[in-house]
Amino acid sequence: MTAIAAVTTPPGMFEFRVDATEGLARAGTLALPHGTVATPAFMPVGTHGVVRGLSAADVARTGAQIVLGNAYHLHLRPGEDVVRAMGGLHCFTTWSRPMLTDSGGFQVFSLEGLRRIDEDGVEFQSHVDGTSRKLTPERAMEVQWALGADIAMAFDHVVPGQAPHELALEGMERTLRWLDRCRAQHAVLARGREDSRPLVQQALWPILQGGTHDDLRRRSLEGTLARGPWTGIAIGGLSVGEPKAVMHRILEAYAPELPREMPRYLMGVGFPSDLLEGIARGVDLFDCVAATRNGRHGTAWLPTGRVNVRGAGLKGSTDPLDPECDCEACTTYPRGYLRHLFVVEDMLGLRLVSLHNVRFLVRLGEQARSHILAGTFDGWSRDWLRRYHARGA
Amino acid sequence: MTAIAAVTTPPGMFEFRVDATEGLARAGTLALPHGTVATPAFMPVGTHGVVRGLSAADVARTGAQIVLGNAYHLHLRPGEDVVRAMGGLHCFTTWSRPMLTDSGGFQVFSLEGLRRIDEDGVEFQSHVDGTSRKLTPERAMEVQWALGADIAMAFDHVVPGQAPHELALEGMERTLRWLDRCRAQHAVLARGREDSRPLVQQALWPILQGGTHDDLRRRSLEGTLARGPWTGIAIGGLSVGEPKAVMHRILEAYAPELPREMPRYLMGVGFPSDLLEGIARGVDLFDCVAATRNGRHGTAWLPTGRVNVRGAGLKGSTDPLDPECDCEACTTYPRGYLRHLFVVEDMLGLRLVSLHNVRFLVRLGEQARSHILAGTFDGWSRDWLRRYHARGA
Repeated sequence: MTAIAAVTTPPGMFEFRVDATEGLARAGTLALPHGTVATPAFMPVGTHGVVRGLSAADVARTGAQIVLGNAYHLHLRPGEDVVRAMGGLHCFTTWSRPMLTDSGGFQVFSLEGLRRIDEDGVEFQSHVDGTSRKLTPERAMEVQWALGADIAMAFDHVVPGQAPHELALEGMERTLRWLDRCRAQHAVLARGREDSRPLVQQALWPILQGGTHDDLRRRSLEGTLARGPWTGIAIGGLSVGEPKAVMHRILEAYAPELPREMPRYLMGVGFPSDLLEGIARGVDLFDCVAATRNGRHGTAWLPTGRVNVRGAGLKGSTDPLDPECDCEACTTYPRGYLRHLFVVEDMLGLRLVSLHNVRFLVRLGEQARSHILAGTFDGWSRDWLRRYHARGA
Repeated sequence: MTAIAAVTTPPGMFEFRVDATEGLARAGTLALPHGTVATPAFMPVGTHGVVRGLSAADVARTGAQIVLGNAYHLHLRPGEDVVRAMGGLHCFTTWSRPMLTDSGGFQVFSLEGLRRIDEDGVEFQSHVDGTSRKLTPERAMEVQWALGADIAMAFDHVVPGQAPHELALEGMERTLRWLDRCRAQHAVLARGREDSRPLVQQALWPILQGGTHDDLRRRSLEGTLARGPWTGIAIGGLSVGEPKAVMHRILEAYAPELPREMPRYLMGVGFPSDLLEGIARGVDLFDCVAATRNGRHGTAWLPTGRVNVRGAGLKGSTDPLDPECDCEACTTYPRGYLRHLFVVEDMLGLRLVSLHNVRFLVRLGEQARSHILAGTFDGWSRDWLRRYHARGA
């Protein structure tokens, strides 16, 4: 695997040190209870406490430094009380490195027709068993506290991708009001009632909202920073259907306004080129299910664009899937065998291509970091994107 | 993993050395082109060139010494020509240890309504695309030669489990006539036309038939041995619905008649207790899909009987699935997490329990061998079976 530039003295707990910048792009080091994270970094998504189809050892071999869990899904199954009784998410999943949990805001707001929103929170029907549940800012904190990840995310009011100004304003303002409640509840939990003693130290990160409206985005940032200090900040409500150019404009507007020593997490992004575009605009952390979802569907990401592993062109080929890749799939198996696994519908194929795609994004973060440290990111990323898109991928 | 008794000097290629016996039970060492196999041994089934859901590295970690492939399935997908062009089954699958291929006889005779049998061979419709195909003794040899496993199996006429005497007689006699043709064709291939140069040396093993009829079983054995010499012999047509006592009676009748220095392979068997019952009656090699099939369905084999991994009793448990097991699933994960994987339908659960079950059978072979070498097999296996069946498993 590509070497990660050596870290000298680690920052203090939950501190983020900027190791180098190039334009808006940043290389940093984030200290968390379960280890340090060298950024930029892609975080694989373990929705249910498992990166779909991959073992903790598989994920570790991809070089991933931090993995996501999801409070909504883990609240439903197996329940945060079960996870907590088993020693928290790290003991439950056996993943020993840093973890972050999403608050469930994005999931419950996606339950169109199955949820009712008011100022208190969101009542919703479980997609699993139809039972009625409620998430509030306070509950979202309690659930995530019980799960015990290194980082908990604020419970936010998410609006549809291209929501009109009025709706985006409502969501943005409520997200700020809920942030106050999240912060208060997280502080109560952190002060430590006997029955909620933290499994580890846990940071709370806020989420910026405001849709695609520049004025709302600015007000979201101002309101969030005014409620600080924070050890990290997330940019939510993007990559939900708006044109790429809009996302880029918002990121570019945020970059100079965001405090330098605070890691920036662009939620739900993305695909390979999204990572490089985001890094070029100052983003430090990314997460997305596309790596594993594409892997399960037989789409592999290569430096020359994506490829359908089921494709007839791979039949009988003894070449690796990606000759430049150092993952288990590419260093072990001929791509003709990977194709065969998809043809005969063996789940090993799904696992191996998922694993490749995760490694692909993790390595992209590693490479970007090396180039930022060397001051060569801009040229490298342009060349990389040109090659990736040459076939129209 | 349990130590396998050290082998001093290995036997010559395709030779089988009996290292120890206890009653009818035998501990032996079989030399094959890709390595030696210490017996008794369970062989995981890689029907399509993959042990369902497991990577070659996964299978190697179970301690499996030899893996099966299936000529019928690999002929259909990807085709033996494709496998051969890629360097044979070992290069195709990356499994570097010994392999055995079944001839496809069992599969094509199972295609009730989709096949026509005559003296020449079996015409059948592919279950994949409905195309018309034909397997003959000669074709079965050519397919397996192209696949290039260490051991090829004869193409046999398989009759239903409790076939009447007349039908079993027909199948048994045809199997002998076809054995002559297999042997002749295998010799032609081994002499090596330029375009069929062997990928490795390959042994041909015959298959005994005769249903549940003692006289036919005896004639099958006599006819097969008269056509020898062979380096190994398989017992087919058992574990297909007949009572266990019938299988045991046939094995007991065969044991003293079979040449001592010839490994005995009981095809399609079995479950944990079947292994011990077979070993006690002189069987050296076993194969069965039950380990992975049960694993995918969430049934794990434990020393105290089988358990449903989905069971509510496992919820929240931090205990290992089987505290006596050294497999990845049992040494890494709390069983409460394994249950969760089945509840949320993540394929990692299927993989981990499959892996456990394969390791369970492989270790059972290792333990049986140790006890045969120590002269303690009989008592140990009785105790083992008593404990396994105590809960009525």
